[in-house]
Amino acid sequence: MTPSVTWAPVSGGITAPTGFKAAGLIAGLKPSRKPDLSLLLAPEAAVCAGTFTTSVVRAACVDLCADRLQVTSGRVRAVVTNSGQANACTGDRGLADSLRITQAVADRLGFSHDQVLICSTGVIGVPIAMEPLLAAVDPLVDALAPDGGAAAAQAILTTDLVEKEIALEALLGGRRVRIGGMAKGSGMIHPNMATMLGYLSCDVAVPCDLWQDMVRRAVNRSFNSITVDGDTSTNDTFLAFAAGEPLPEDQLEALEEGLTLVAQHLARSIARDGEGATCLTEVQVEGTDLETEARQIARTICGSSLVKTAVHGRDPNWGRIVAAAGRAGVAFSADAVALWIGPHQLMSEGQPLPFDRAAASAYLSERACGRYLVDDTVQIRLSLGDGTGQGIAWGCDLSDQYVRINADYTT
Amino acid sequence: MTPSVTWAPVSGGITAPTGFKAAGLIAGLKPSRKPDLSLLLAPEAAVCAGTFTTSVVRAACVDLCADRLQVTSGRVRAVVTNSGQANACTGDRGLADSLRITQAVADRLGFSHDQVLICSTGVIGVPIAMEPLLAAVDPLVDALAPDGGAAAAQAILTTDLVEKEIALEALLGGRRVRIGGMAKGSGMIHPNMATMLGYLSCDVAVPCDLWQDMVRRAVNRSFNSITVDGDTSTNDTFLAFAAGEPLPEDQLEALEEGLTLVAQHLARSIARDGEGATCLTEVQVEGTDLETEARQIARTICGSSLVKTAVHGRDPNWGRIVAAAGRAGVAFSADAVALWIGPHQLMSEGQPLPFDRAAASAYLSERACGRYLVDDTVQIRLSLGDGTGQGIAWGCDLSDQYVRINADYTT
Repeated sequence: MTPSVTWAPVSGGITAPTGFKAAGLIAGLKPSRKPDLSLLLAPEAAVCAGTFTTSVVRAACVDLCADRLQVTSGRVRAVVTNSGQANACTGDRGLADSLRITQAVADRLGFSHDQVLICSTGVIGVPIAMEPLLAAVDPLVDALAPDGGAAAAQAILTTDLVEKEIALEALLGGRRVRIGGMAKGSGMIHPNMATMLGYLSCDVAVPCDLWQDMVRRAVNRSFNSITVDGDTSTNDTFLAFAAGEPLPEDQLEALEEGLTLVAQHLARSIARDGEGATCLTEVQVEGTDLETEARQIARTICGSSLVKTAVHGRDPNWGRIVAAAGRAGVAFSADAVALWIGPHQLMSEGQPLPFDRAAASAYLSERACGRYLVDDTVQIRLSLGDGTGQGIAWGCDLSDQYVRINADYTT
Repeated sequence: MTPSVTWAPVSGGITAPTGFKAAGLIAGLKPSRKPDLSLLLAPEAAVCAGTFTTSVVRAACVDLCADRLQVTSGRVRAVVTNSGQANACTGDRGLADSLRITQAVADRLGFSHDQVLICSTGVIGVPIAMEPLLAAVDPLVDALAPDGGAAAAQAILTTDLVEKEIALEALLGGRRVRIGGMAKGSGMIHPNMATMLGYLSCDVAVPCDLWQDMVRRAVNRSFNSITVDGDTSTNDTFLAFAAGEPLPEDQLEALEEGLTLVAQHLARSIARDGEGATCLTEVQVEGTDLETEARQIARTICGSSLVKTAVHGRDPNWGRIVAAAGRAGVAFSADAVALWIGPHQLMSEGQPLPFDRAAASAYLSERACGRYLVDDTVQIRLSLGDGTGQGIAWGCDLSDQYVRINADYTT
């Protein structure tokens, strides 16, 4: 086991690592005239690993990304992202439009077409507004800059309220290494193998197969552990680029720690910005046989409408937490259950404990004091026995506002 | 195949079949002073079949019911139901209280204690208010009457807005046969092997094993096909009593039709009365290989928060329906998808069709004109290929009101 290194935050987001460039602008794809088109450019010799939605109904762009990563063995240089139209369920036109866009970007960058990927997000069933998009390719490529991370992070958003980006830095074997990331997602968030859209950059060369394995593990411990509304999207995509000098092999474990930290930060940011959410919910489960079992229970609790509404109502209705655990599909002994909401222990050895309801409710109320403050996280901890399995999941509360946002989205 | 018989509605609910008695009264278990205690009495020689929640965390009463049905080989005579406290997660006290209550009822009726079952519904983690309950056993037994179905149907409710009962009658082999039913449930509704609470009575003698099989099939096509909020309860229970003269064997298929109709009516009533719901959603899926696959997809669509909010917003945002189908865990070809909302076809062979958005939205709006009218059902039909599998599921929309009801339930 390598001793842990310290990963410290730095500015720059997805373009913080050496050699990465990005851009974001208003192409006019959305009625709101907000930034809606972005481009990320990786340095020469980059490798890219991707994880994608497990939905049977996948957007054309997802098929394209998965195919090109396979054809090129991960030797991909750029990814363009349009927001406003998901380009899912758009029939034959969907793939044709994706091909045209990536061809146009590849031509302008001087790459072969299969070195460019595309991600799309927005309304399902609506084709991409091709004319404004194609007209914006030239200015988009011209705008590529080593400090373009913030502009790109803004241009991938849809119903998100805030940008989601991060960059971390550490010294690995005496060398400065950076990992950057950006993501978007606020509704239709219950990723399975990937999030709505997430991107990661790293200025270290890692062999493609090894990189894919590291990325998959990091995604399972981050994006695959969040839920906003239980709806896995048609477009879920996570793309991670690595390019630079290689690291000594004994530093790879520390690098993976950094990957996981960046991915977890982005995943938590998505849950925290869940549609209509007023707080982040973090559920820790321990004492199962397997890590996957603990994570499955944690995610079921995070996804329970009844737990989510109770948290929203600042109501320590803990029975709903145990009920959600019970239906997660994992066997455990109800006699071994212990439960905490924040510092308040509510159950021990399967028996309810007397607790200060007003104080527990106050704990929940304090978490709602604002977005993105250190203390806006509701902590729920469930212990189920003596097993060594532990897992964590993140979600958010369910508010009236979620219903309003989603009842009125296309009309 | 027996020719279908005509099952006609009759009054009387759970006590419509010959020999059944019921009662319901206010014992004072709930602060609201609404009816909260009921009793159902089956005729001598009745057999009872039960299906129960699959949750790992089961209320004490569920364990008691399952045990006694096994010990007595289904020879059970009565079931008492308290509403207000679910008696789940109440530690050792939970079982002790259930035993005391059933003993008191059995003593008063002159039965052995294991011939009486108990169902509980209400807040999880709160013990039953024993003193008022035990004081009410005498008046409860005294109130048993052959026309007590309506009183019992009322006393099992919690957040339900309306009673859910039905009785059907048919001539089977020249003999008048009746089936009655009642149910409760409005939140924490995503039954797995049973509903929140459902009861059925039938004035025909059926061998216990056969009866259990018939009931299980009927439950799969009814209670196990509804969802309100995806939360399987700790207390889900369905109990079905059969008592009377036996039927000729060639009439059993027609009897099972009646069982299924009664169970489906009750299940639909629960979905229609989903917390905060303004309409019933019925999703029909066809063209899969297996019936179970079609049902799984239908139920996933019914349970999607995004589909539910779109229906609530009267928004024909059909992409969410296809997206939900895609994540249901059943493989199908996206190229074969055809989709209808009411009379409006929105997709054919995987391609979106032009459609009159205003008319489709008006179709959805018209469904909201009132509860329990003939036309408050939103019909969604999805065809996925050439398979013979078809399945149906029922749910409801997701409204701001659902959030308010559940954010404020215990505090």
